[in-house]
Amino acid sequence: MKMTLSEIADLVEGKLSGDPHLEINGVSGVEDAGPGQITFVADKKNLKLLESSKASAVITSEGDEVKIPAVKVGNPYLAFAKMIEVFYPPSRLEPGVDSRACLCQGVQLGREVRVFPLVYIGEDARIGDRVVIYPGTSVGEGVTIGDDTVVHSNVSIYDGISIGRRVIIHSGAVIGSDGFGFIKTEDGSHYKIPQVGTVEIEDDVELGANVCIDRANLGVTLIKKGTKMDNQVHVAHNNVVGENSILLAQVGLSGSCRLGRNVILAGQAGTIDHISIGDNAVVIAQSGVAQDVPPGSMMSGTPAIPHNLWKKVQLSLNRLPETIKNIRKLEKKVDKLEDMEGSV
Amino acid sequence: MKMTLSEIADLVEGKLSGDPHLEINGVSGVEDAGPGQITFVADKKNLKLLESSKASAVITSEGDEVKIPAVKVGNPYLAFAKMIEVFYPPSRLEPGVDSRACLCQGVQLGREVRVFPLVYIGEDARIGDRVVIYPGTSVGEGVTIGDDTVVHSNVSIYDGISIGRRVIIHSGAVIGSDGFGFIKTEDGSHYKIPQVGTVEIEDDVELGANVCIDRANLGVTLIKKGTKMDNQVHVAHNNVVGENSILLAQVGLSGSCRLGRNVILAGQAGTIDHISIGDNAVVIAQSGVAQDVPPGSMMSGTPAIPHNLWKKVQLSLNRLPETIKNIRKLEKKVDKLEDMEGSV
Amino acid sequence: MKMTLSEIADLVEGKLSGDPHLEINGVSGVEDAGPGQITFVADKKNLKLLESSKASAVITSEGDEVKIPAVKVGNPYLAFAKMIEVFYPPSRLEPGVDSRACLCQGVQLGREVRVFPLVYIGEDARIGDRVVIYPGTSVGEGVTIGDDTVVHSNVSIYDGISIGRRVIIHSGAVIGSDGFGFIKTEDGSHYKIPQVGTVEIEDDVELGANVCIDRANLGVTLIKKGTKMDNQVHVAHNNVVGENSILLAQVGLSGSCRLGRNVILAGQAGTIDHISIGDNAVVIAQSGVAQDVPPGSMMSGTPAIPHNLWKKVQLSLNRLPETIKNIRKLEKKVDKLEDMEGSV
Repeated sequence: MKMTLSEIADLVEGKLSGDPHLEINGVSGVEDAGPGQITFVADKKNLKLLESSKASAVITSEGDEVKIPAVKVGNPYLAFAKMIEVFYPPSRLEPGVDSRACLCQGVQLGREVRVFPLVYIGEDARIGDRVVIYPGTSVGEGVTIGDDTVVHSNVSIYDGISIGRRVIIHSGAVIGSDGFGFIKTEDGSHYKIPQVGTVEIEDDVELGANVCIDRANLGVTLIKKGTKMDNQVHVAHNNVVGENSILLAQVGLSGSCRLGRNVILAGQAGTIDHISIGDNAVVIAQSGVAQDVPPGSMMSGTPAIPHNLWKKVQLSLNRLPETIKNIRKLEKKVDKLEDMEGSV
Repeated sequence: MKMTLSEIADLVEGKLSGDPHLEINGVSGVEDAGPGQITFVADKKNLKLLESSKASAVITSEGDEVKIPAVKVGNPYLAFAKMIEVFYPPSRLEPGVDSRACLCQGVQLGREVRVFPLVYIGEDARIGDRVVIYPGTSVGEGVTIGDDTVVHSNVSIYDGISIGRRVIIHSGAVIGSDGFGFIKTEDGSHYKIPQVGTVEIEDDVELGANVCIDRANLGVTLIKKGTKMDNQVHVAHNNVVGENSILLAQVGLSGSCRLGRNVILAGQAGTIDHISIGDNAVVIAQSGVAQDVPPGSMMSGTPAIPHNLWKKVQLSLNRLPETIKNIRKLEKKVDKLEDMEGSV
Repeated sequence: MKMTLSEIADLVEGKLSGDPHLEINGVSGVEDAGPGQITFVADKKNLKLLESSKASAVITSEGDEVKIPAVKVGNPYLAFAKMIEVFYPPSRLEPGVDSRACLCQGVQLGREVRVFPLVYIGEDARIGDRVVIYPGTSVGEGVTIGDDTVVHSNVSIYDGISIGRRVIIHSGAVIGSDGFGFIKTEDGSHYKIPQVGTVEIEDDVELGANVCIDRANLGVTLIKKGTKMDNQVHVAHNNVVGENSILLAQVGLSGSCRLGRNVILAGQAGTIDHISIGDNAVVIAQSGVAQDVPPGSMMSGTPAIPHNLWKKVQLSLNRLPETIKNIRKLEKKVDKLEDMEGSV
């Protein structure tokens, strides 16, 4: 695979600077790139990394001054992602349903579906066009999967779940397991509350490996369009996660939370149940959200407080042992002053 | 499905208030309920939500005053759970062992067992009556599974594990993987300690999706009767978890802990190894338990301290930046006072 | 299975103390051991546990004084592990590829391979000698697996991944899922950055149940020789984890971190992306590493600070409510002193 720099500029709709005939044969990060490769710099403060880079060309922002051949665009990272697609085109899977897959009665398959061996698809499930289902995945009765969705290996989708179009579900994910609901009875045992709701995953969602999304008690656990979850995220029953939100690895949402759109929860953050997190809010890694979060705010800590306050507290904290010593000194001084006053 | 209010009152053994012939066609939470549906209020302070609810009837506590037809009981939530069971009866699975399941030599099957396609059951495993095993699940050699247990899809049960009656195991759970035990050797490598013990899951336990329970080094990792675990809980080797305990999502237990009965560990809490947590103790979400926890206590923070102290500390913490400023002011005042004294 | 104490001493190359003909029929921990069994004490302060132990013999350190027959060695725990191997020899699996496994075209199998039913192996995968693959596992196209590696049930290995020799992969682990990389576009949606790199797992690595290791964006996510991961660890794209490191349960590594050799991350610890952790560094449980960690250091807290400072801070913290009271008292005293000065 080879392209000239001017072909690249055309493809990403960028402005060419340098030899248009320069031949590019690969893409790489700025520190790893070798001769013949194109790299990118998205952030001005990383421009200096170009000095030691062996890349033959760079995708950078309009207005950046660089010493090597360049293609300048509005969003260098996005243009670079598109170059990766060109140099690493996804392998085309031949459509077909393997005879060693198990399809139950009433399954409806769209066009050009690929079903690998050892896949189970339950009764009356409806699988959209060009869907790919990898080995070992179990699709429950009555599940619907929209067009162009990819379900990787060993995924478990319980009965009656609805999954949109262009969704990507990574291996080991579990969708539709029972919400965690029990009632303590008089003898100390826990009576199971039937979890008879469902899960709806809207279009363009991506779910990481071993993500778990519980079905609602009644109603629906809803993951809205364009939301992306990293590995090992847990979403309890009856949550609603708004559009284009980001849940990083190992985040845990307790039951019945409402997340707005463009919310970001960083890694290992958690929430208590029944809280809402407003649009565009950000929760820092490992934080524990214990009350409603206003739109646009940034929260940190357990329990989570506004990030700016948290930062001040952290700084103060590290000086706390010293602070306590200073207080002791001060107490002695004051005692001495009191003695002197008393002696006046 | 329809029932009259008096039929409902009979079924939950409650006291009827209002039209006994009122026809109910569904159940729903107080905020989601529509006309024709029955809802519930378990907590007096939520009674006001009934004013804006469209529910036609409510299950509530004896003594509660409400303006709509009601059934009054000792435990409204429990009665409501029973109503969900009535309106959403679990689908009956036909018994049968699919020919595309793989059963090894010596497998003993109870009566009315349902084994889905693509299930693997190892040699000499014993499967009780009415057990259901969903697709993609692997049951190791010599495993025993008690009557009426349900094992969802893609569960992995290693050799020799013992599982009780009426247990529910959700998809992706792993039972009996090796405990994490290594000895550092002189060359810096880690020598694996053989993990030759087992896991015993007693009756009425429920394990959430992607839960991991390691086998003991020697002896047994024991999950006692009635304990419920939420998704992605990790239980290391040689733990003993007492009866009717609750481990919420993403909790992690290090090795050789002893949990009493009715213990609650909230989400993302963790423990160090070899500690004990007494009966009825509660550990708050994200806490890190680093020493023994007395029965009945409530612990918070990392390392976990008594919850009341932790709450006070948290309140103080948020004032810490201000506190440090105040100390500086005080120091200046004292310095000034000392100067004045000196000048007397 | 029976051995005399002198046979045991020979086997572990230890020094015998007591009756060489003493017959030993089992191994057990010091508190669980019964008559006829041998136990071990690795730490001098646990020697007193021998007084109440029913063990018939003990493996202990050279120089330890004990009252029961003993075998004394340099590393008692290591010698004990070897005794477990003797008393619980691993069951030999007959080699063979089950006809109900699905092997695609071009798969190369080494000698004495065991492939269980319901395993999927993609095109051109190369499987080394004596490899064992348990039911429900999916091995992608072009994967290589080295000699003597064991892959437990329901593991998902994506296309093109490279796995070394003597690796153990526990059930539910996912290797090679897409790294989590998206670019925010102008309409608020997230554009997926193609994840076209791979994962390389070197020799002698062990991965716990439900571990997730993402493929690199470009290049490789690398787990070096001898590293051991406990259950539910998450390793994001482009990480490099050095030799003989230990990642305990539920640890999460953000993208592009560099861990040295012999690093220990305790349970539920996490890192931000693009940081490095030096050789022999230790990160305490639940800590959040937010900057580079020097070799040999021990870090705690979120954000992680040197452990000694963190300990002091924790101690101060618990006294914080009291400290704030003391400051108030002090303020009053100083106010009074100022009044008196003013009145002089």
